[in-house]
Formats: sequence, C-alpha cells, structure tokens
Amino acid sequence: MSTQPTRMGLQLRSLVKPDGELEISLLGVATPDPAPDEVVVRIEGTPINPSDIGLLFGAADISTARVSGTPASPVVTAQIPARLMKGMAGRLGQSLPVGNEGAGVVVAAGSSAAAQALLGRTVAAVGGAMYAQYRCIKADQCLVLPEGTTPAEGASCFVNPLTSLGMTETMRREGHKALVHTAAASNLGQMLNRICIKDKIDLVNIVRKPEQAAILKNIGAKYVCDTSSPAFLEELTQALADTGATIAFDATGGGKLAGQILTCMEAALNRNAKEYSRYGSTTHKQVYLYGSLDTGPTEFVRNFGMAWGIGGWLLFPFLQRIGASAAQALRQRVVAELKTTFASSYSKEISLAEALQPEAIAVYCQRATGTKYLINPNKAVST
Amino acid sequence: MSTQPTRMGLQLRSLVKPDGELEISLLGVATPDPAPDEVVVRIEGTPINPSDIGLLFGAADISTARVSGTPASPVVTAQIPARLMKGMAGRLGQSLPVGNEGAGVVVAAGSSAAAQALLGRTVAAVGGAMYAQYRCIKADQCLVLPEGTTPAEGASCFVNPLTSLGMTETMRREGHKALVHTAAASNLGQMLNRICIKDKIDLVNIVRKPEQAAILKNIGAKYVCDTSSPAFLEELTQALADTGATIAFDATGGGKLAGQILTCMEAALNRNAKEYSRYGSTTHKQVYLYGSLDTGPTEFVRNFGMAWGIGGWLLFPFLQRIGASAAQALRQRVVAELKTTFASSYSKEISLAEALQPEAIAVYCQRATGTKYLINPNKAVST
Repeated sequence: MSTQPTRMGLQLRSLVKPDGELEISLLGVATPDPAPDEVVVRIEGTPINPSDIGLLFGAADISTARVSGTPASPVVTAQIPARLMKGMAGRLGQSLPVGNEGAGVVVAAGSSAAAQALLGRTVAAVGGAMYAQYRCIKADQCLVLPEGTTPAEGASCFVNPLTSLGMTETMRREGHKALVHTAAASNLGQMLNRICIKDKIDLVNIVRKPEQAAILKNIGAKYVCDTSSPAFLEELTQALADTGATIAFDATGGGKLAGQILTCMEAALNRNAKEYSRYGSTTHKQVYLYGSLDTGPTEFVRNFGMAWGIGGWLLFPFLQRIGASAAQALRQRVVAELKTTFASSYSKEISLAEALQPEAIAVYCQRATGTKYLINPNKAVST
Repeated sequence: MSTQPTRMGLQLRSLVKPDGELEISLLGVATPDPAPDEVVVRIEGTPINPSDIGLLFGAADISTARVSGTPASPVVTAQIPARLMKGMAGRLGQSLPVGNEGAGVVVAAGSSAAAQALLGRTVAAVGGAMYAQYRCIKADQCLVLPEGTTPAEGASCFVNPLTSLGMTETMRREGHKALVHTAAASNLGQMLNRICIKDKIDLVNIVRKPEQAAILKNIGAKYVCDTSSPAFLEELTQALADTGATIAFDATGGGKLAGQILTCMEAALNRNAKEYSRYGSTTHKQVYLYGSLDTGPTEFVRNFGMAWGIGGWLLFPFLQRIGASAAQALRQRVVAELKTTFASSYSKEISLAEALQPEAIAVYCQRATGTKYLINPNKAVST
C-alpha cells in the first residue's frame, strides 16, 4: 500500500445545465488512494479525439463559446440550441470527466503484485477521465509501454490503433476482401493505410480535397478517390471494381456519401453480372458509420439491390464481440508496432488550461486533417 | 412420359426497350414437354404482389400507360423517365415473363415417379413466369395442396406466408422478443397479426390512416400506431416501451419512417437507462427494408446511438440462410394453416387480358390496402 499524502490534481469537467448552457472547467480534485488492484498514473499525454470532442462540447454551438475565469483556471461556456437539448437529457446536471485514453507514469500503486509491478513504469490506459493530472485506474486496464517509449508516443495507443485494426478485422470476419474508408487523410486514415500496406489489403481511400489525396499518395496509398472530382462516382466505381471492396467505414455519417458508396459497389458488382435480377446483386454490401463529422441527416437512394446494410460501428462493443483473447492479440500488435504502423502525430502539445482557450478550441474542434492536439495535463506543473 | 400434343398458352411478358419504352403484352407460347422431373401446371390463380409490380412495370411512369392491340391481346406501353433508365440496364431488350407464385392443376407430368404422382393434383408453386396459362416446372418446386383447396386459395402460398413467417423467425434468430411492422393493414400485415396472435408475439403495427387502424383492431391487433396521429412519435415510443420491440420490418423503404422507428426504439430503451452514455443504448436496434412503397430517398437523423442497423431483407436469401430443413418446416406450417392463419383475400379475380386494362392497372398499381388482385390466366379460356 502506498503511504503518500493525498495528491491534489486538476481534472477537466464538462457540465450541461438544464437552461442549455454548457460549462467546461478545471476542478482541483483529490486523487483517490489506489485500491489493492489499482494504480495512480500521472497523465503526460492524452489526445483530443473526435470522440472526446463529442463528450466535451455535447451539442453546444462552438461559435458561442466564451472564456471566463483566470488563465490558470479558465471556464468555457457555450450555448446548446434548444432543439438539441433532447439529446442531452441523459447528462443534464452531471459534471462529467472527459478523455478516453492517455499515457503517463505510475506514481502510486495498490498492494497487489500486479499493481506494484507497474510502479515507475510508463503505461497507456483507456477508460475515460484522462484529461486530468492524475488518474486512479485498475492495473489490468494499463498497457505497459516498451522501454524508451514516451507518454506522448503512447498516448494514442487504443482508440485509433484498435479502431483501424478493428476495421480490417471486421472486414475479414464478415467475409469481405477489401475495404473503403472515408475521411481517409485523418490520423486514423493514415494509420489504416499503413496497416493495409503491411497486410497487403486493398484499401479505397475517400477524401474531400486534392491536398488530402496528396497526403495519402505520399504514404503509398494506391486507391484514392476525391469527392471534389467531377468524375468522383465513376472513379469510385472503378476503384471498387479493381479491389472488390464490399465493406466501408464512414467517418462522416451525415449526407449522401454512405449511399453513394453502396450505389457504386452495386454498379461495380453488376459490371460482371450475367443475368438480370430486379433485386440486384446477391453480394452483401455493408457501410458502417463510425463517426459523425457531418452531423446532418443521412440520405440514400435505394438503387443497390436488397443485399445491403448500413449500421453503427463502435470500438468497444466490437472488442467485446471478438472476445478477450482476440482483443489482446490486437493490443499486442499495437505495442509491437507503436513507433511505426501505429505512430500518431499531433500539431501541438497543450496544457489543460490551454485546451480551454478560444484559439485552441477553434482549431481542434474543426476535426480537420493536421489539427490534432495532444494534451499534457502536467505540462505546466512539470516544466 | 406424356404424349399429348404441343399445348399453346398465353404468357405475359414485360419488355424495356432501349429508347425508354416499356411494353407489356401477351404472347402465345408453346408449353414445353415436361422433362422426366418436371410437370406442367395449368395456372388458375396467381396474385399481383408488390414484388410482381416491380418487374411488370419496371421504373415506368404508370400515368403514361396506354393500351393498344385487341381486347383479347392488349399491349400496354408506358414511358420510363430518362433518369431511371440506368437502373433498367440489366433488363434492356429482354422480353421477361412475370409472376412469382401461383397455383393450378397438374395437366402433364414427366416420367419420374415424383412427377407422375402430381398428375391431376392441385399444386402451388413459386419460381417466376406464373402469369401464364401453363407453367412447366420441376416437380420438387411444387407444393401439393390438401384435398378441397382451390387454386385461388393456394395461389399466395409462398410470398406473403413465408415473408411474414420469415419476419418472426428473423426476430427470434437475431435475439429480439417483439417486432414492428409498417404498412401493417396489408394482406401480409394481417397475416403477420394472425401469426403473432397465435404465437403470442407482441407486434407493433404502423399504419397511415384511421381506417387501416380499424381493420387491424378488428382482427385483434393490440398495438396499432397511426402515422397520421399528431402524437404518432409518442404513441410509437409507448408501444415500443410496452413491447420491448427492437426489430422492425418496413415495407415503405423511402422517407423518414425507418429512422423514426430507430429514434423511438432508442427513446423507449433510454427510459430505463441508469447512466449517461453518449454512444446511446447498447441494445442493437434493427430495421429491415423489405419493400419500397415509397420510392423516394430514405432519410434519417442519427439520434439513436451507435447500436443500430438498417438493411435490405428479401425472402429467398433468408430461406437459403436458414437452410433446407428449416425452410421446409415453414412451408409445412403454411399448408397446415392455409385456410386460417395464411388465408389471403383479393378484391377481384381477373384474366391475363384484364390485367392489361387501364382500369385494372390504375387499381392494383396503387398497392393500397384492399386493392389486391388475383389473376386467373385460364379464366377466359375455362369459363
């Protein structure tokens, strides 16, 4: 059992008030003494993923964000449009900690051997509340990083690596041989390209701009389709015919893209059809929506036969579905290739207080290519 | 081997020409001599199902339908809008026979014992080309109807009975305990109600009008929600909460209904949620689109978490998926309950030539409740 005095630390909180105001603030909280099977991690790197922004800002209109408080303890407020308050009902009045994943050094450990073995080690962890200087967490939720790995290098060990591996794994398990990915120039998209190149999987990348296409071409992507091209649908159909991809992972969610992918998959399949069937190809075509970069409605024209599906895809239910040992195998691969296949890059490292500054919010809330931020909650304290 | 002379018979054909004209006509065709394992059925009842109308009229604009030819041999032409011709590419220039299912009397049989055993029997069959006076078909595709069953009573043995049984079977196999059905006052919807009442399954019926709600209430439906009610969404949510239904079969396809069902399912599930999750309920919610009464785009707002799916559902792939013996068990149940649970009703019995008259087309193409027609291809000949 650790006998250190109570350790205070800053923790970021997000609160939706019944009147429609969102409030993000930094609270000084006492770090709990670790239970026998727990450790306390001093978090030194925790990324701002799109999934974190969702919890952080809820349905608030970012353009209404105002900052008050002090530079060391800023408070952000923003307004949530009345029509979106229904979706916030489940979190009203609850001061919620934020931050899916992070990495840092174990500074206190419970009495169990498993916990004690982690003392002083650099670990990565997933489980929420990582936007904090200290996080008390079960030892078995920690992934020990190899010697020579910094917390910044290990901060994004879980969400993007396991999501991108989860995509190729889902592709295989559901009987497809190639896949499509949208918002493909993102950190996650680049990671998926490295996996697919390494594993010899054909990947059709969909981007919105020529600059994004260039990023992917530069890292060796073979199939890149740009929605801004006048011939986008023809180019996508050709890439689908070339690769035989019949499953897609779409980060945009809203709009017509998911339906267009199904339409082009069907057109690619029908190029080789021998006989007319008014029910279309019998090959199942699937699009999973795993993000919501476009928060508008999803719309599709049903011109792709009857063998199709659109659905939500989420990492943690996927890991549960494949079972503990399969999930562990994916984690081991991430650790083994952390500085190569699964390397993340950030445009800036910021403190907790800086994460609440308007300039920073304006950048990372774009969720745009090349605007990914890493929070180091101990930046101000430790340097 | 039968040694009868070649038998001529009328067969309905649908042809899409490259210039965008649809042509429906009656052809005099020679009925093939049955191979050893085949029989010739004199078709006396074959329903006009929504799935038949799709093949019959393709993407043609019904309002442009014109009839020429003679009363005994009419020819219907109609125009297909240019923007929809892409979807017709697979059938261009092919004169296609129509009619998924039907029933009649076996008037000739091949030499095999199985075929000979059917001579003179009243059978039902599925396999296309039933809008014809004679249909040569494999003996093992025929279902022998019990003594005392007329072809009219057996005409709809397959599509609606197996589709409605397929729905409750899919519900069970995918782990749901109650289901939702739209266009619920249809022949199929009433049949599904009889199955669910008999099997003690909770069924939420969605209809468009008070008259349709009354039809269902009259046959004992407990949960009926009318989209024309101002409180439709609240009423649907309440029915979903009462029944725990998390799977729906939607015949409309287009519009917002599929998404609204998912939204209300999520709202019903969240009534009992203990903890906030920004990813929504972990219970999988599924809507299968099995029809396309609304041919417009499908649109949904993603406010139902991440555990959801929308997809196509089609009878024959379903039967293949469950395997021959499970499919056979479903067929046996249909025969056993043909005059009760699986009874179909028709507003009119018409000949092949009458099916090509403008007044008839205007009625059955509505696909509306109470407008179902039965074709008796031997009506004019045999009476």
